[in-house]
Amino acid sequence: MEGEPLSALCSPALVVDVDKVKRNSQRMMERCHQLGVQLRPHMKTHKTLECADIMTGGSRRCIVVSTLAEATFYADHGFDDILYAYSLPFDKVERCAALSERLDLFQVLLDHPDALERLRKRPLKGGRRWHVWLKLDCGNGRAGVLHSEPEALQLARAIAEADGVELTGVYAHCGNTYNCEGAEQIQAVAQETTSFTLQFMEKLKAVGISCKSSIGSTPSCSHPVPDMGKLSEVHPGNYVFYDVQQSVIGSCALEDVAVRVLTRVVGHCPHRNQLLIDCGWTGISLDGAGKLPSGYAMIEGHPDLKLLSMTQEHGRVEPISGPLDYSKYPIGSLLTLIPYHSCAAAAMHPVYHVHSEGRLMGKWTPTRGW
Amino acid sequence: MEGEPLSALCSPALVVDVDKVKRNSQRMMERCHQLGVQLRPHMKTHKTLECADIMTGGSRRCIVVSTLAEATFYADHGFDDILYAYSLPFDKVERCAALSERLDLFQVLLDHPDALERLRKRPLKGGRRWHVWLKLDCGNGRAGVLHSEPEALQLARAIAEADGVELTGVYAHCGNTYNCEGAEQIQAVAQETTSFTLQFMEKLKAVGISCKSSIGSTPSCSHPVPDMGKLSEVHPGNYVFYDVQQSVIGSCALEDVAVRVLTRVVGHCPHRNQLLIDCGWTGISLDGAGKLPSGYAMIEGHPDLKLLSMTQEHGRVEPISGPLDYSKYPIGSLLTLIPYHSCAAAAMHPVYHVHSEGRLMGKWTPTRGW
Repeated sequence: MEGEPLSALCSPALVVDVDKVKRNSQRMMERCHQLGVQLRPHMKTHKTLECADIMTGGSRRCIVVSTLAEATFYADHGFDDILYAYSLPFDKVERCAALSERLDLFQVLLDHPDALERLRKRPLKGGRRWHVWLKLDCGNGRAGVLHSEPEALQLARAIAEADGVELTGVYAHCGNTYNCEGAEQIQAVAQETTSFTLQFMEKLKAVGISCKSSIGSTPSCSHPVPDMGKLSEVHPGNYVFYDVQQSVIGSCALEDVAVRVLTRVVGHCPHRNQLLIDCGWTGISLDGAGKLPSGYAMIEGHPDLKLLSMTQEHGRVEPISGPLDYSKYPIGSLLTLIPYHSCAAAAMHPVYHVHSEGRLMGKWTPTRGW
Repeated sequence: MEGEPLSALCSPALVVDVDKVKRNSQRMMERCHQLGVQLRPHMKTHKTLECADIMTGGSRRCIVVSTLAEATFYADHGFDDILYAYSLPFDKVERCAALSERLDLFQVLLDHPDALERLRKRPLKGGRRWHVWLKLDCGNGRAGVLHSEPEALQLARAIAEADGVELTGVYAHCGNTYNCEGAEQIQAVAQETTSFTLQFMEKLKAVGISCKSSIGSTPSCSHPVPDMGKLSEVHPGNYVFYDVQQSVIGSCALEDVAVRVLTRVVGHCPHRNQLLIDCGWTGISLDGAGKLPSGYAMIEGHPDLKLLSMTQEHGRVEPISGPLDYSKYPIGSLLTLIPYHSCAAAAMHPVYHVHSEGRLMGKWTPTRGW
């Protein structure tokens, strides 16, 4: 189907604008270069080889992943310097050990003394050491040991002192930027996370420990504060696609969003003043409920429409106000959804259709599972 | 891993109790046999060959699917008499034609005159006729032409009279049973849908048209009314797995639910009185938000816990009241989630792990896409 227009696709279909992907990636690389910080792009949004190549500038080095399935997928395709940024899952220690023994640089992350104990009980072969990042919670409220608690420093020291283990870095995810609106609020969170992390690095230095530092999130890395240049790395991921959520937060403009879900009108329901489309939750996910006046997504070019609800293979669309003009939406006609959350929308698709200026270029196949 | 306990699996993992699947299927077959109605099981919940074999009693005949990808998958594996119960999508007419020309009995569905026109414009080869079901809306409020409107009878007549097309049946989905609580309410909706459908069949008879009739939904077919014996077919699907939603509706008991999502504790957050688990929305979907006191799922054996929120790879669990006793949930310990909606949970998994009495039997691989 190469060279054909998007309308040649059966729907629902996830389509990726490769030019926007390249532009978003290029901008992030330039931003990090100017800041003087290493970019370690996160793969969790797309999970494809092609996008990883674009995000790493073709180096296939220095990436971060959310699942061990991603780590294995990228390792199998020649990627290295992979950080599995997920609090060491005890059921996957042996698989992590195998990757550590196979790659030049496979890195794990932990936030609990029991996890360190698991690594000590599984020394790596060939004189290798576990490369371990300590996960700090600097206000995000998900994983990580609280930066302000004495346990954080204790655990860092325990990692640094353990046999067969190396403290590679300190890692914080500032996902609390997702509650922000506008660059000013984003930068306040970015500054706070950076400051807490750098303060922690000072505490480490005071006890004779030096290692890397990294913070991330697409909002903070889209509007970095100068102090982020004092970190070793940053690790955003969603920026490659962006989405409506990021545009609401203020990370990007709506025209930077690189993904769409193509859908078609499959029903007219004048007795309910609704349309049916062929995109249900299998096509875009249920993420974004209650967040937008336009419902679960934005319908491109139709700000007057709302994606009200979805079942497995149907979406119900209605006007935000007034009666629907069905003549504008004949059965079979295409509509284009801009996803609220591109990570969640992409996760529903076994294949992404890639285009440049509306002409199909090929398909990207993500990895799935854990 | 065959013969090993479920705890041998990496998490998150979707696990299927094959004995419950067989029991749920057997009960539905017996119920339909007693009622004197043909069961046409829906594949949309699981999308696997193995489950389809169980639901069809090994016949590989007489199924209904929600996507053309499912239809093709089953056709490729020797299934026939397949009903693609989705208002004919205009982008897929040629693929439907290919299946119609290849199988003994591939059946499509429509609810709009424009769809009939598409079929007329694409006559089937070899003297074959399109097998067409008319979709009626008997109160469900999604797809279908309203049973009470004159357009319904007009469209049925147009299908019956069109060259190269046969009116195979009249199809209604009583998804409005999902608003019910208890057998009495379910049966009221089942009776209403059945009555409307049978009244429509009488109208058809009055103009000299005879064809099949079918209604479905797991609640109505779990608690059928005697009049459903006057229909030709029923087409439930979710019953093979059931889920918490169905137990709340009253379709099943909680012990009939055949699927679980295995997850492990990956974090302790005493400062927030929370646990983190390794099941985020990629592991169970966001379906069920706000529906249960226990949050997005039930946590088996722990009625005091709530799955409060999820991000891509994390779930936040907290007690419904009081402080969390972390000694009961060491890092790495297993928890078992009973999904609110098994169709949505299953859709997130590239493979299902099948067990009998907690011993692994193998894997089932669903088809995906459209």
